[in-house]
Amino acid sequence: MNLTILGCYAATPRSLTNPTAQVLEMKNRMFLIDCGEGTQVQLRKNKLRFSKINHIFISHLHGDHFYGLIGLVSTFALLNRQNDLHVYGPKGIKEVTLLQLKLSNSYTGYNLYFHELESKESQVVFEDDKVVVTTIPLIHRVYTNGYLFTEKPDDRKLNIEAVQKYKIETCYYQKIKSGSDITLDDGRTIPNKELTFDPPAPKSYAFCSDTVYNEAIVPIINNVDVLYHESTFLESEAHLCERTMHATARQAAAIAKQANAGKLILGHFSTRYGNIELFKEEAATVFENTELADDGKVFKL
Amino acid sequence: MNLTILGCYAATPRSLTNPTAQVLEMKNRMFLIDCGEGTQVQLRKNKLRFSKINHIFISHLHGDHFYGLIGLVSTFALLNRQNDLHVYGPKGIKEVTLLQLKLSNSYTGYNLYFHELESKESQVVFEDDKVVVTTIPLIHRVYTNGYLFTEKPDDRKLNIEAVQKYKIETCYYQKIKSGSDITLDDGRTIPNKELTFDPPAPKSYAFCSDTVYNEAIVPIINNVDVLYHESTFLESEAHLCERTMHATARQAAAIAKQANAGKLILGHFSTRYGNIELFKEEAATVFENTELADDGKVFKL
Repeated sequence: MNLTILGCYAATPRSLTNPTAQVLEMKNRMFLIDCGEGTQVQLRKNKLRFSKINHIFISHLHGDHFYGLIGLVSTFALLNRQNDLHVYGPKGIKEVTLLQLKLSNSYTGYNLYFHELESKESQVVFEDDKVVVTTIPLIHRVYTNGYLFTEKPDDRKLNIEAVQKYKIETCYYQKIKSGSDITLDDGRTIPNKELTFDPPAPKSYAFCSDTVYNEAIVPIINNVDVLYHESTFLESEAHLCERTMHATARQAAAIAKQANAGKLILGHFSTRYGNIELFKEEAATVFENTELADDGKVFKL
Repeated sequence: MNLTILGCYAATPRSLTNPTAQVLEMKNRMFLIDCGEGTQVQLRKNKLRFSKINHIFISHLHGDHFYGLIGLVSTFALLNRQNDLHVYGPKGIKEVTLLQLKLSNSYTGYNLYFHELESKESQVVFEDDKVVVTTIPLIHRVYTNGYLFTEKPDDRKLNIEAVQKYKIETCYYQKIKSGSDITLDDGRTIPNKELTFDPPAPKSYAFCSDTVYNEAIVPIINNVDVLYHESTFLESEAHLCERTMHATARQAAAIAKQANAGKLILGHFSTRYGNIELFKEEAATVFENTELADDGKVFKL
């Protein structure tokens, strides 16, 4: 599981900072999460393969989270993309994207599917044989969802020495990896745990931006391995959170602690702060395993 | 008159090249021409003052010429802009911009005026006491206009020695600068040319992108001081012009020559070419005073 931060700063793109976008690589799938202006250039600069992105998850329709979508959709068309592209986001995202394509008279040669979200309850929005994606309803100035990405458990690992010892034929291997016990020709039943090892524990990643401090998300993200939580402000500017509906670093850490997260990654920093290390220091007083996002940073998780 | 190229490459933004946008400074006004994705960052990188832009001219609604508009409009709002902003461009630009603002629930605190264009004839779209802007109908895959920016003539320059010699009172100076002769108290009439010098010749700048080779624009831009003309291709790829409705460097030079332009600036280069000097070499065989646009380049004209 790799997380590449393409942009993690609030409000507007600047010379040296980019608005929100990140790529999660999980089980050989590449998910794009949010798509602020300039995301396609950030993908290029970070040498991520455009063509591997088949699913884009947009949290909300503020410009710093989705103004780069139309450019990416158009570039996919110019590059003669063939694979289907699925876009998940708030209602309205389809209308605005299709209007822009219509005005430029440049429809896509690939299938473009929109999955518009309106529910205020957590729901599964994507599922295949390896990964499930669930919404995390957030509270912000407009309708907003975070997304929880969860790996499905792998097959159990075959204990080669054990299966050879019992002379089990290879045609049974998949059954064993799926967890079954095996009955030998002599009638003995070998319990699965003697024939297999535990697979790696499934990983999970939660993206929560933008939002006020909201304990209601804790049950949804409980025991998540990695939590990305917005921290637009430090506690010294906590008075701005109510009006702007953002969170502080300390509040992000409080959520991570309550959710028993393995690691907290902070992002969505207001550009008013010269030194983002202050965010880490503030959060670490509540939740020690805290790291800072930064544009171009790759987390090997 | 200064021209700053923010971006001059065709199709999609890339790591090192930007789509079309440029700033023309004329008579202390700052006009933004086209606004591809990332224009607001290019404005910052080139240290141009956002707040001085009151008029934005969009040639056509292909993404590489206007996907940066909504981001700039939004950023103006976040920066608490107060001045009116005028946007000139093809019909549809208002609907798509307002839809994006509506979806993000972030209307502008300043007045935002759209001047939507539909005419296929050249027309005046902006005029104040110093500058006139006229459309240049172009031929491309969608409805497209270039723009001709023309300075109005300055007042004539007062010949201080002459007016003092005739003891002309200062209250007549503005009348003299406007071109009038003066009758002295003794009945003598002094012709204006004895009391003034010629002002600097008014300058003009024509922006022509995107377009096929189109001689119909020559009368509109006749004798222009500086012509920016697209040259997406070299002659070696001239066969692509018909389908894509673009021009070659040699064709751009042919237009400059017929229009008796003072200088030709080439831009909108396809990124298939490693060396843009080839464009200059090709054009110079037809029109010698040719220069190349490049991102970040400033022409002091």
